[in-house]
Amino acid sequence: MTMAKRDTYTPESLLAVAVEVFNERGYDGTSMEHLSRAAGISKSSIYHHVKGKEELLRLAISRALDGLFAVLDEPGATGGRAVDRLEHVTRRTVEVLIEELPYVTLLLRVRGNTATERWALERRREFDHRVAALLERAAADGDLRADVDGRLATRLLFGMINSIVEWYRPERGGATSATVADAVVRTAFAGLRTDAGA
Amino acid sequence: MTMAKRDTYTPESLLAVAVEVFNERGYDGTSMEHLSRAAGISKSSIYHHVKGKEELLRLAISRALDGLFAVLDEPGATGGRAVDRLEHVTRRTVEVLIEELPYVTLLLRVRGNTATERWALERRREFDHRVAALLERAAADGDLRADVDGRLATRLLFGMINSIVEWYRPERGGATSATVADAVVRTAFAGLRTDAGA
Repeated sequence: MTMAKRDTYTPESLLAVAVEVFNERGYDGTSMEHLSRAAGISKSSIYHHVKGKEELLRLAISRALDGLFAVLDEPGATGGRAVDRLEHVTRRTVEVLIEELPYVTLLLRVRGNTATERWALERRREFDHRVAALLERAAADGDLRADVDGRLATRLLFGMINSIVEWYRPERGGATSATVADAVVRTAFAGLRTDAGA
Repeated sequence: MTMAKRDTYTPESLLAVAVEVFNERGYDGTSMEHLSRAAGISKSSIYHHVKGKEELLRLAISRALDGLFAVLDEPGATGGRAVDRLEHVTRRTVEVLIEELPYVTLLLRVRGNTATERWALERRREFDHRVAALLERAAADGDLRADVDGRLATRLLFGMINSIVEWYRPERGGATSATVADAVVRTAFAGLRTDAGA
């Protein structure tokens, strides 16, 4: 038996612990007991902060979604040619993903077993649709190659972006969020080949 | 209680059922009982074909790995400029991934809790390293842009390729493996922008 530590948590710091446990065990596989052990406080102390694990999930997912949706309202995403707005959204999505890594990781792993998870999936689809609409607009402007289908291009773009949560580790040093965002934008929009488009 | 059906399985057809269950429940979450129910035959009938679930995992993973590694020995992967070999490997990796979708999906989801899973991770790393070496060779030839780090480019390339298992569904019609492979090669090597490289 371990001594419970004094509950000095704020909602934010408790959330950070919960998200770590959710990402490690999966949301379905996490019990209040696991959260209590990871936080080092009793279950009743956790209930003092939140109604239960689903509220913690909702708060964590909201943080990820708020960050991502805010990108779509930035000046770079709302003014100018669609292809430039799409590049801006791509770059900033990568940066938000890295800045909010555990929260976006959780969002991307949600399964759909509870109302909160289904809401998360719905909002994620909405985000994807808004980026897809931008991509289609850029294609209609003639700024994207015509021989790659828009839906396929959107999926490959998000495939590249979302894969970052599988390998990016902040502590490993080296690549900053700006470096990774640059690499994604260059690879996706200008291609890896030096003679691309020639 | 459901009637057990007569065991008319071959090792291949039993494997197909097992891989479906592994992908749905996760390998860790699958018991011999689950496999017996999905196949509609008794556990002892399954033991007639294989030693246990770990042997089924090994057979399934082997099928995925054999398909992927075979790509590296194809003439298009062994002769010519490194950048063209890299494109060939990218295209064929996508095609094998789609042709062997459930098997490669399983390979990509393996966690590392058993000896077989650790062997799978090791072989997957070996494949990634061989593609990374090709990419570095192409960069040294001056055929890849110099402003994207090789390790990062390899990760983004595999991010795009591996994400296909998350959304590709053969029954949805439309995109064939050749269409998807084309889109990946074009996006990764030539970029989405029409003025790319201009």
